[in-house]
Amino acid sequence: MRIPNHIGVIPDGNRRWSLARGLSKENGYDKGLDPGVQLFRLCQEIGIKELTYYGFTMDNTKRPSIQTKAFTDACIRAVELLSKEDASLLVVGNTESQMFPKELIPYTERKNIGKGGIKVNFLVNYGWDWDLSRLISDTKNIKNSLKSNILCYLNSYDISRVDLIIRWGGMRRLSGFLPVQSIYSDFYVVDDYWPDFKPEHLFNALMWYDKQDITLGG
Amino acid sequence: MRIPNHIGVIPDGNRRWSLARGLSKENGYDKGLDPGVQLFRLCQEIGIKELTYYGFTMDNTKRPSIQTKAFTDACIRAVELLSKEDASLLVVGNTESQMFPKELIPYTERKNIGKGGIKVNFLVNYGWDWDLSRLISDTKNIKNSLKSNILCYLNSYDISRVDLIIRWGGMRRLSGFLPVQSIYSDFYVVDDYWPDFKPEHLFNALMWYDKQDITLGG
Repeated sequence: MRIPNHIGVIPDGNRRWSLARGLSKENGYDKGLDPGVQLFRLCQEIGIKELTYYGFTMDNTKRPSIQTKAFTDACIRAVELLSKEDASLLVVGNTESQMFPKELIPYTERKNIGKGGIKVNFLVNYGWDWDLSRLISDTKNIKNSLKSNILCYLNSYDISRVDLIIRWGGMRRLSGFLPVQSIYSDFYVVDDYWPDFKPEHLFNALMWYDKQDITLGG
Repeated sequence: MRIPNHIGVIPDGNRRWSLARGLSKENGYDKGLDPGVQLFRLCQEIGIKELTYYGFTMDNTKRPSIQTKAFTDACIRAVELLSKEDASLLVVGNTESQMFPKELIPYTERKNIGKGGIKVNFLVNYGWDWDLSRLISDTKNIKNSLKSNILCYLNSYDISRVDLIIRWGGMRRLSGFLPVQSIYSDFYVVDDYWPDFKPEHLFNALMWYDKQDITLGG
């Protein structure tokens, strides 16, 4: 079976999960923590080399503050949980904004946790335009190098090309997730909400991915 | 019914369509011309404001020359056909490379054709990295302006945000199609190959789009 090197995870549907249970919107984020760890361990066992979670975006922080606080807290907690596993952990996002949780600053340089191993990236207060903006601001370094290797000059330069993106919650859009690394990604949508994560979701996505013909445009 | 302003079209599956008929791969491209005009007229009637066709990419030109010639000729012919309609027509792509067909140079500045109207963009010898590279090379102009408005500084600056992308041929990936304009696009996949285009494909995509909740990350 052909296994992707790098899986991108868009864990959507937390608010709709809450509403469907008669709860207010902000209650769903906590319920995404166990699925996050479960998915990580499955990927580790399967031999996935890199895993990127879409935490929250700069756009998301325009939501009501009760929601913003809830998903920020959930991301802090998620990174703390992952930091007890064996991984090479990195948080990527705009740390210059007040919305970036200071608890996660220590993770903004990649570090080996436990025995190291699978690269795990967590996007926190990330913005697609913030990511691309380094192409502009870092021009002195870029000018004389190969323009074609744009990946190196993103703010997310330490995140590789994504082979498979799995989005929970039924939406068929990328919503700003790593626009450059997603250029050739295969995109699999799970209709269930993220808090209802089941291992079958991942297995189905992997079986589907195995049947795709990867050409990278050639 | 909520109609998208801008539809992106990835007309894939021409080679597989040929092979399925016992023809060699390059024979399918011609069969995509009628569908292209048919789709254009339907969009015009429905009131779509902008339509972007994914012609071919710089990556595609690494294919065997018999294929490259076939899809290049088909794109020239497609633009010629569209230039007999009422539209505001633009071809976007890397004109500095030899692979850009000189017949299409006159279309690389937007021009009103007939009575004008719907904006029609055709990507020819396009590359996602070529598109983004203007962020680097045009820095003198960009430095003092708002970085957040990245769209203005792309090589594809005259193409707006895409609301709905329809891809024929069953693949669920963007393959480098306008990475910045596709950030929030809803993505609809038709399993049929592009030469087998039917109006129902468009109508089904529009009905599906009508049910999507557009948030732009908010």
